Amino acid sequence: MIDFPYLAEIVQKTDSKILMLVADGLGGLAQSGTRRSELETARVSNLNRLAQQSAGGLTLPVAPGITPGSGPGHLALFGYDPLKYLIGRGALEAIGIEMELKPGDVAARGNFATVGGGGNLTDRRAGRISSEVAAPLAEKLNKIKVPGIEVAVRHVKDYRFVLRLRGPGLSDDLTETDPQRIGVAPLAVEARLKAAAATKAAKAANAFVEAARAVLQDDAPANAVLLRGWSTAPDLPSFSESYCLNPAAIAAYPMYRGLASIVGMQVLETGEDFAAEVGTLKEHWEKHDFFFLHYKPTDAAGEDGDFDKKKKALEELDEFLPSLIDLKPDVFILAGDHATPSIMASHSWHPVPFMLRSKWTVGEGVDRFSERDLQRGSLGQFEAKHIMSLALAHAGKLLKFGP
Amino acid sequence: MIDFPYLAEIVQKTDSKILMLVADGLGGLAQSGTRRSELETARVSNLNRLAQQSAGGLTLPVAPGITPGSGPGHLALFGYDPLKYLIGRGALEAIGIEMELKPGDVAARGNFATVGGGGNLTDRRAGRISSEVAAPLAEKLNKIKVPGIEVAVRHVKDYRFVLRLRGPGLSDDLTETDPQRIGVAPLAVEARLKAAAATKAAKAANAFVEAARAVLQDDAPANAVLLRGWSTAPDLPSFSESYCLNPAAIAAYPMYRGLASIVGMQVLETGEDFAAEVGTLKEHWEKHDFFFLHYKPTDAAGEDGDFDKKKKALEELDEFLPSLIDLKPDVFILAGDHATPSIMASHSWHPVPFMLRSKWTVGEGVDRFSERDLQRGSLGQFEAKHIMSLALAHAGKLLKFGP
Repeated sequence: MIDFPYLAEIVQKTDSKILMLVADGLGGLAQSGTRRSELETARVSNLNRLAQQSAGGLTLPVAPGITPGSGPGHLALFGYDPLKYLIGRGALEAIGIEMELKPGDVAARGNFATVGGGGNLTDRRAGRISSEVAAPLAEKLNKIKVPGIEVAVRHVKDYRFVLRLRGPGLSDDLTETDPQRIGVAPLAVEARLKAAAATKAAKAANAFVEAARAVLQDDAPANAVLLRGWSTAPDLPSFSESYCLNPAAIAAYPMYRGLASIVGMQVLETGEDFAAEVGTLKEHWEKHDFFFLHYKPTDAAGEDGDFDKKKKALEELDEFLPSLIDLKPDVFILAGDHATPSIMASHSWHPVPFMLRSKWTVGEGVDRFSERDLQRGSLGQFEAKHIMSLALAHAGKLLKFGP
Repeated sequence: MIDFPYLAEIVQKTDSKILMLVADGLGGLAQSGTRRSELETARVSNLNRLAQQSAGGLTLPVAPGITPGSGPGHLALFGYDPLKYLIGRGALEAIGIEMELKPGDVAARGNFATVGGGGNLTDRRAGRISSEVAAPLAEKLNKIKVPGIEVAVRHVKDYRFVLRLRGPGLSDDLTETDPQRIGVAPLAVEARLKAAAATKAAKAANAFVEAARAVLQDDAPANAVLLRGWSTAPDLPSFSESYCLNPAAIAAYPMYRGLASIVGMQVLETGEDFAAEVGTLKEHWEKHDFFFLHYKPTDAAGEDGDFDKKKKALEELDEFLPSLIDLKPDVFILAGDHATPSIMASHSWHPVPFMLRSKWTVGEGVDRFSERDLQRGSLGQFEAKHIMSLALAHAGKLLKFGP
């Protein structure tokens, strides 16, 4: 929707409120024995009742057969074409730990690694050292000085960290240092284009790597670093300005707060689980006209390959629904950023269950909120990037297009 | 279809005939009590029988969530991408009263308005004066002379009129004079671009406004005018040449005759209701190979928010169908330019019921002509701009693409 060429001419501010609940990894797949998916197995009477009062369908996150990461999955839900608006790996890693990325900053995803006496890699992940070991090492790296460049390093988890280079005229058009195998030396960072900004950034990156080797020389197995996924902060049109909304994001996990913040949503402080998130939602209900509310356990259970746990995560979500509907959103949406079928124990490319409830959808529902039923929903299968158009239309926020 | 890049290489003239019946605002929505739409409530046995012999589906007029006006809605049905071929509001208003617009003419939609002694607006619609009062005033405005410019004013309805400026080198890149509120003076027309053609047109427009104030000074409440929606005649590829068709349009309402004429269809004289239109169709059946036949009552009833009236409009349409099929069109199409659900009392963004009957579709139908049944039709949901491709293909007018 953000790319609809006449959006500015037809969008208008109104008092109506939109609540977009995103159940991460919502979609599933049927098990071979029962031939039923997680949604078809779970007791989700509230979801089913809402599906009967909603426009239903299945959303395609990116394109057929394409499994999205969290970045493209969420950008599509927010109306950004995930093939046009890209987030680099380094930038996403920074976003995921809420490390500030200003325009022009260049970020890389870093691994602690091990090199032998000859300088060749013996372990690309430094024996998968724990966070307890790695965090203080990241602190040491954070003190590295590179002339003319502001260096910042933040620990992420286990052997992973983020490096951020800040300074005038830096480009992210850089090669990675990870040779993807052991027995050879880490590669030098090279400018992929013969441009001054790339050459300058490559020089700074190599200076950092050299300084890191010196700083870490006594910290084996973590005596070296590998840098990948060079990227700048994504430059996205403002969600708020584009849609004439005053949006708020509520998510217990930093990654999703970060994704909301890069499109310009106000990120609300909340607690560590969904109950806390719902409390935050109620507290701020009067102050915003769009809420992005994130539910993580469905994805976590799917990633674990735990069918029963995902079923339970759906049932727990189901119990929260009446309290959300009690807030009387003009438009209530339940969507997923991608499927995470338990039988695959990973994100997948499958279309994702979707429903939208407004005063105009009361007669058009399907019997149950499941992959199979929603395939026959009134919305059919459609690209997730169109969800925001439907949300704004049902909320009465879009004028007629053309005379 | 007009934009299919190899259209000219594959389209051919044949003897087959296409009848495209457009039921304006055809699509509806289910009521909450019965959970049935207008189509699902109406007794439309002919429609249902035809649906059983047709390829069925739902058409998306513009894009998900986008509610089209009559202009984009009909352009899509005729195969013109409604996001590429735009019609301005002033031009559509002129088209709607069949006022000639030549290339280079600039048209605006005008309101009669009321200003007080200080020149500030007290009513933007002059108390919504009736056509009886407004028509003679428009005649007075039509006599205004602006040096070097040919001015024409035609009354539309109630307090509305169209202003047409004709002369060499005029641009429609002009600001509107309606400040959208009372208590302030009307705005001057300004050129939005610093181009000679816009400056010239702005000068002419302001001269007209000033002259109108003088002409109308004793005609309170209609003692001023407001001008909006400056636009030139749309420049569209020829329907007839692009498709190798000899098309005719039959519509009781001027707006739809106008839309047909701007794509180059021959507009046939007809009467004031659908019975008269069908008479015209029969009379001219041998002379054309494409007919656009427009049915208005479905939209009018939907706009009134009158569910029962829309149901009756569908039932009345149903009774005409056998006489249309008796003409033995090689391709019969029933489409809508957009939905007008009675429960919304307005145009909407919802996909629109569609069927196409040819000798190749006899076995692929759905049971009933309704939103729900057609969702499962063989055509699924598709963009309305592709209807003409299907029409030409089923009529045997498209050769194989590629060797």
